[in-house]
Amino acid sequence: MNFNALLEDRVKITDAIIKAFLPREEGYQVTVLKAMNYSVLAGGKRLRPLLMRETYKMFGGEGPVIEPFMAAIEMIHTYSLVHDDLPAMDNDEYRRGMKTTHVVFGEAMGILAGDALLNYAYETALKAFEHAYLGIGEMHCPIDRVVTALSVLGRKAGIYGMVGGQVKDVEATENGEMLNKDTLQFIYNLKTGALLEASMLIGAVLAGASDDEIAKTESIASKIGMAFQIQDDILDVIGNENLLGKPVGSDDKNNKVTYVSLYGMDNAKEEVLRLTKEAVDLLENMAGDKIFLRDLLLWLVNREK
Amino acid sequence: MNFNALLEDRVKITDAIIKAFLPREEGYQVTVLKAMNYSVLAGGKRLRPLLMRETYKMFGGEGPVIEPFMAAIEMIHTYSLVHDDLPAMDNDEYRRGMKTTHVVFGEAMGILAGDALLNYAYETALKAFEHAYLGIGEMHCPIDRVVTALSVLGRKAGIYGMVGGQVKDVEATENGEMLNKDTLQFIYNLKTGALLEASMLIGAVLAGASDDEIAKTESIASKIGMAFQIQDDILDVIGNENLLGKPVGSDDKNNKVTYVSLYGMDNAKEEVLRLTKEAVDLLENMAGDKIFLRDLLLWLVNREK
Repeated sequence: MNFNALLEDRVKITDAIIKAFLPREEGYQVTVLKAMNYSVLAGGKRLRPLLMRETYKMFGGEGPVIEPFMAAIEMIHTYSLVHDDLPAMDNDEYRRGMKTTHVVFGEAMGILAGDALLNYAYETALKAFEHAYLGIGEMHCPIDRVVTALSVLGRKAGIYGMVGGQVKDVEATENGEMLNKDTLQFIYNLKTGALLEASMLIGAVLAGASDDEIAKTESIASKIGMAFQIQDDILDVIGNENLLGKPVGSDDKNNKVTYVSLYGMDNAKEEVLRLTKEAVDLLENMAGDKIFLRDLLLWLVNREK
Repeated sequence: MNFNALLEDRVKITDAIIKAFLPREEGYQVTVLKAMNYSVLAGGKRLRPLLMRETYKMFGGEGPVIEPFMAAIEMIHTYSLVHDDLPAMDNDEYRRGMKTTHVVFGEAMGILAGDALLNYAYETALKAFEHAYLGIGEMHCPIDRVVTALSVLGRKAGIYGMVGGQVKDVEATENGEMLNKDTLQFIYNLKTGALLEASMLIGAVLAGASDDEIAKTESIASKIGMAFQIQDDILDVIGNENLLGKPVGSDDKNNKVTYVSLYGMDNAKEEVLRLTKEAVDLLENMAGDKIFLRDLLLWLVNREK
């Protein structure tokens, strides 16, 4: 199968795993359950759980302990979008062509559905202990790996991860602050990079990768996260509106400091190439089957939409 | 020492434990760290961590494994207040005489500070594994107790706990829905009761209480939570505005269905007495030193403010 067919196939598998962990829509609190499921099911390519599973497999991981974490990271990603879209934040009415959660369910329910998804992400990830508890048998994963994976998830999603980056981004935008190179790097590393790092790290940790492999995995994810975000800036300048499905030039119009505005287009393109090459070189030196994972990383940073 | 002196003493100890887990206010994301700490430090009597610690001690618990959970449950309680106060929810500008988080830091930061607190609660609770990892030594708690305590925290804080009750309450208020007895019970059990149950349950679980003791502990907390909430309804009708620090009669003015409006004042008072007696009777049959815990429960349901 070529990459696109493989990708489609694995997105389907990932989708099914995520769906299996969504709450049933019943009970007096049914509205928030509907709002949670609506938000998650509106979702795109399941990049984070996909990266997690592929990394897990590359390091020889088998068995279902990865699945609760796949669902959990997608729930965390989704809650961040739901809150990001709120009127007090980006005030977006549409995402991927669908009405945003607060538009469909009201603003109070948008806030609560985000809260509910974040909390449920941890409830879900904790289910991994069911596959780890005894630490024996083929399908069981040593319990300390689950503990480490949980603490990676927590750190990368919180104030020293995604939320930290989000906060600085929101604040800089509200104050019309001119970002410098350090602050831009901080925001990109945390807002976009942290959850990608969590995804690959959790895969590596649960599969039992060595400390050295785990450190390299974090480095790969960090470089890809940065390249991904710079590519976003590039596409906002030279992208094809039809492919992107959104107008280009919005960063310029909003006086937003981006990698392109700080360093210039040529340097931005070079940086994407450099980071991607470094990430792929690191990956190529790992053991295990990494062909699909390499293609996935290349696809991420070379995308035109 | 009499109860009030003991209470003051133990609130101080609890405060110090919570403070030790708050993030340092440094880094590019400092604003959200300040907003988190402002929200937590504005807090009141630390009821939940206090109940947790007393229950832990009653069942013979020793050692620091309880402390991350004490901080975590206060962070979860605090995040729920921060989001509850937002303009799209209750739109409250003051809480306990202090400006609410979104009034001081802006609405976007109010949303993010709540998210940050919820996530940090789990990061904090996970630190309990540091005192459990080896499962040996006097100060170490068997690891399975920490796993159970985490899953109690997750369940009682989420859609089948606090958030679930909050959702139904918000929805009923928005739609002017006339609550019936079942729905009122659902909201009271979850919105107020769930975190009180989590507090006492986690104390019992970490101390190694038996299944029977754990079930009775949950029952005590559930009865006290319900009595506490009914007492709230009673005080809104016959309370002393000076003691309460807020106007009475607000439920009636807002056409809010309460236990008093559904069952009448006499039945409400009787129910508080009945639930309290049942809870205290259950408690009296437990082993261990429970004098302060009993007085604390009685103080909770007999409060005039």
